[in-house]
Amino acid sequence: MNITASLDYVLAAISDPTRRAILDRLTRGPACVTDVAEPFDMSLAAVSKHVQTLERAGLVRRQRKGREHTLSLDARPLRQVVRWTSRYERFWNEHLDRLEAFFTQKGQTP
Amino acid sequence: MNITASLDYVLAAISDPTRRAILDRLTRGPACVTDVAEPFDMSLAAVSKHVQTLERAGLVRRQRKGREHTLSLDARPLRQVVRWTSRYERFWNEHLDRLEAFFTQKGQTP
Repeated sequence: MNITASLDYVLAAISDPTRRAILDRLTRGPACVTDVAEPFDMSLAAVSKHVQTLERAGLVRRQRKGREHTLSLDARPLRQVVRWTSRYERFWNEHLDRLEAFFTQKGQTP
Repeated sequence: MNITASLDYVLAAISDPTRRAILDRLTRGPACVTDVAEPFDMSLAAVSKHVQTLERAGLVRRQRKGREHTLSLDARPLRQVVRWTSRYERFWNEHLDRLEAFFTQKGQTP
């Protein structure tokens, strides 16, 4: 998988609030699919599909031990997201600078 | 639009490589839709649809002056993405710490 494709998967994976909530649950430690599904008002199959999307993005790891599947968080793919957004940091700062200049100027005229 | 919904839109918008390339083009300054479309091997209609997705996410602003439409970048919604990912920073660091500990330990045994 090349870097662009994997960034596509990571961003698409985290664009869904249920999937972000699953990641948030896993920050408290590894859990089985049933535990992960518990707070959601949806079928286990639907939650499993969300988990698969997260696995494909490399954000969730699955450990099989017989019939027991344990899910854990792997936050490392998010570094790509940070790297991509950081290139835009100066643009939102510039925007704020322009706003500040505007209000400063307004303050100077009576 | 609430914050969660808008984060969904922003992440979905930037999950596509064409849309990221459009944002990248707009870092060089405002441009009309035709200019933005130029490097892509797709119809103007397809590019316009991508631009609309970026507008809905608040990442692109459109200024109308008669028939001329000028697009410009608004990077501010990306701050939400940074805020969201920053909560996971300690998890990828922990992962690296564990790896480092593992290799340090390996290095100590002959």
